[in-house]
Amino acid sequence: MSVPTVTVLLDLVLIMAAAHTLGWLAEKIGQPPVIGEIAAGILAGPTIIGHHLSSVLFPADARPSLNLLADIGVAVFMFVAGLELDRSIFTGARRSIPAVASAAYLVPFALGSCVAITVLTRYQTGNRLHFALFVGCALAVTAFPVLARILHDRNLVNTEIGQLSLACAALVDILAWVVLAVVLALAHPGGAPWRLILLIPLVGLMWWVLRPMLGRISQIGNAQTMIVVGVGGALAVAAITEWIGLHLIFGAFAFGVIFPRERRPAVESGVRVLSAVLLPGFFVVAGLAVDLSGMDSTAIGELVAIVAVAVLGKIGSVYLAGRLTGMRPRPAAAVAVLLNTRGLTELVILSVGLTTGLIGARLYSLLVVMALVTTASTAPILRILGMAHGPSETTARTDTPPHRAHDATVPADAEPDARLDNHG
Amino acid sequence: MSVPTVTVLLDLVLIMAAAHTLGWLAEKIGQPPVIGEIAAGILAGPTIIGHHLSSVLFPADARPSLNLLADIGVAVFMFVAGLELDRSIFTGARRSIPAVASAAYLVPFALGSCVAITVLTRYQTGNRLHFALFVGCALAVTAFPVLARILHDRNLVNTEIGQLSLACAALVDILAWVVLAVVLALAHPGGAPWRLILLIPLVGLMWWVLRPMLGRISQIGNAQTMIVVGVGGALAVAAITEWIGLHLIFGAFAFGVIFPRERRPAVESGVRVLSAVLLPGFFVVAGLAVDLSGMDSTAIGELVAIVAVAVLGKIGSVYLAGRLTGMRPRPAAAVAVLLNTRGLTELVILSVGLTTGLIGARLYSLLVVMALVTTASTAPILRILGMAHGPSETTARTDTPPHRAHDATVPADAEPDARLDNHG
Repeated sequence: MSVPTVTVLLDLVLIMAAAHTLGWLAEKIGQPPVIGEIAAGILAGPTIIGHHLSSVLFPADARPSLNLLADIGVAVFMFVAGLELDRSIFTGARRSIPAVASAAYLVPFALGSCVAITVLTRYQTGNRLHFALFVGCALAVTAFPVLARILHDRNLVNTEIGQLSLACAALVDILAWVVLAVVLALAHPGGAPWRLILLIPLVGLMWWVLRPMLGRISQIGNAQTMIVVGVGGALAVAAITEWIGLHLIFGAFAFGVIFPRERRPAVESGVRVLSAVLLPGFFVVAGLAVDLSGMDSTAIGELVAIVAVAVLGKIGSVYLAGRLTGMRPRPAAAVAVLLNTRGLTELVILSVGLTTGLIGARLYSLLVVMALVTTASTAPILRILGMAHGPSETTARTDTPPHRAHDATVPADAEPDARLDNHG
Repeated sequence: MSVPTVTVLLDLVLIMAAAHTLGWLAEKIGQPPVIGEIAAGILAGPTIIGHHLSSVLFPADARPSLNLLADIGVAVFMFVAGLELDRSIFTGARRSIPAVASAAYLVPFALGSCVAITVLTRYQTGNRLHFALFVGCALAVTAFPVLARILHDRNLVNTEIGQLSLACAALVDILAWVVLAVVLALAHPGGAPWRLILLIPLVGLMWWVLRPMLGRISQIGNAQTMIVVGVGGALAVAAITEWIGLHLIFGAFAFGVIFPRERRPAVESGVRVLSAVLLPGFFVVAGLAVDLSGMDSTAIGELVAIVAVAVLGKIGSVYLAGRLTGMRPRPAAAVAVLLNTRGLTELVILSVGLTTGLIGARLYSLLVVMALVTTASTAPILRILGMAHGPSETTARTDTPPHRAHDATVPADAEPDARLDNHG
């Protein structure tokens, strides 16, 4: 075994230690752990510790291995995100959901695209349309996992606000991945656009062959078998979508969506260990590319514009859509603030943009800061709205229709519970 | 992301699928799963599917990444092996233990060294003494984890035979790693022998600083913290021992040994998921180096000699030592057969020998077959001895001394239980 193995192992340990320590500190100050984990990634990059120390700690010959581990970590994370996407959320759906979800995605998307071709033109690297669409994608994200975690921490999962924002976030999540897939297909950075045609048989195979097959296996397999089948299947489909020319995240997420429902809790809690070990690598790989050391006043102005458009576009559109579909002011405001959290999902999308050349390193750095700011602002604003601890009188409405009586069963799947880890 | 990422992911899935399928088949025919997993590794190599297909499935540019994943998998496995080494086994010790354990290690070790310098001279690659000592190490192994699994499957953990063989196997395990460390230090393949001096402060630091620190952390940390601390610490100490010039397995194992006792069950069950995903990679990396395609009649004769010496040396010495210290014939025979299982521990030691050049690829291949044969023979011979299902009248002796009354608490730590996975 060679020195790179030693370096990679020590890097992995350093990464785990930094991510979990800062994640723990973030929780201590009332923030979701993902804030600390993203911060740990930025800390590993050149911004704070400098180019020299950063490249001594994470030398060039260790980076391919770290990238591989980060890829596996993200694939596992996306698989869990797919598992968490519980279709039963929608059965308790209110009429606000389609309107609020569409507004929550499309308005920031449109505003983001406009900002791209007006304020951010100097960052454009390739085709103008692709660039604008990608920035739109980046601003429209909502992080479903971190949202679920915030709701759980504040005991809001079973309230109207909790159910509504979970359902909207799930729809926004699906929209986000579909639109990103379309943008990537348009830009076809893979260089083999014909392969994209294979998506059609792949989706058909997954739904009509793989899904029933998984159902059979889940009837005879024990917990270990299901974990191995889950992780193995997610990595396999991830590799196939990557080869097709999409990103590996799509396959892993899709495999989570078709995974047998009844086996999800056990598999999720098992797979979270894998995620706790491998996912921190992703934050660091993502953070190593963040370089804010050369930020000038123009860039600060651009950052302010990006954050303002992202926050106002998301919060304003959701609040208006909620009000127009009959929600009262405070619940509408709460849902709007909740859907503004971007967390890890944003980081995954930004990394895709960076590696496929849709954005450059400087805009990438600004957008990472935007993700950090919007995610960190959710908890304080909720506190200002008086939703810091447990459901208030306003939020725990009882005028929900009778078919919501089965909601007591939802949180077992929807909320992350006391399971191992919750990245967003 | 590049094509190697796709290849590595698909390889990882292929490896997991093969190892778990063959492991499951092995269980169906009454064998420990590790038999199937080793077979899956050999299947991936050139012996059965040929050099061409083997190098198409596992191309050269994917191998470094697979090696890295296998290293992490083995480090995690050794950490679990260290966790499982429960010192309380020895508190119920009978007077047979020191004699039986010494015989179980030293006799096969001496016989193996003799065989090396008589029958196997044509395989000698470097220094004659180092070669002889390493072959001795290879023949003297007992696989503690697979032994625990076999005892559990046959409901023998709480019997005299179970307790005695577990205690002896644990001692043999420690002896095996210490002797291997000495042999590696003698051969100093790392090229920096002065670093070995650092072992002394490292051991001191681990026992007097790290161990109390872990005790503190375990009082405040939750399950996830302990898993992260466990895996992170194991990988860190593994990297340090690797850098020092020993193999990374020693550090991971030692960290498992000093890990706080009360947190072991939770950490073990969590870490087994990691092991289920990453360890199959080790079997394949180990199996890829096995090439039996050019075996001639001389080699078959040598293989028979190796297996005969390994089996007779182990079984004969343990039986005699047991009888001389007052055991009755059938229990003595049962313990002897049990200690002859070699499993994954053997594969780890053989890989160390191969990568450090102590043995070449051809002898390595023969010794892997020896490991497979001795491990596979344990269950059938036990069945012949009438110990297939549950303790027989002979084995469940009640004439044990009074201080064994607390033995009811031992299996909770000593037996692998229904936890996720049990490689040996």
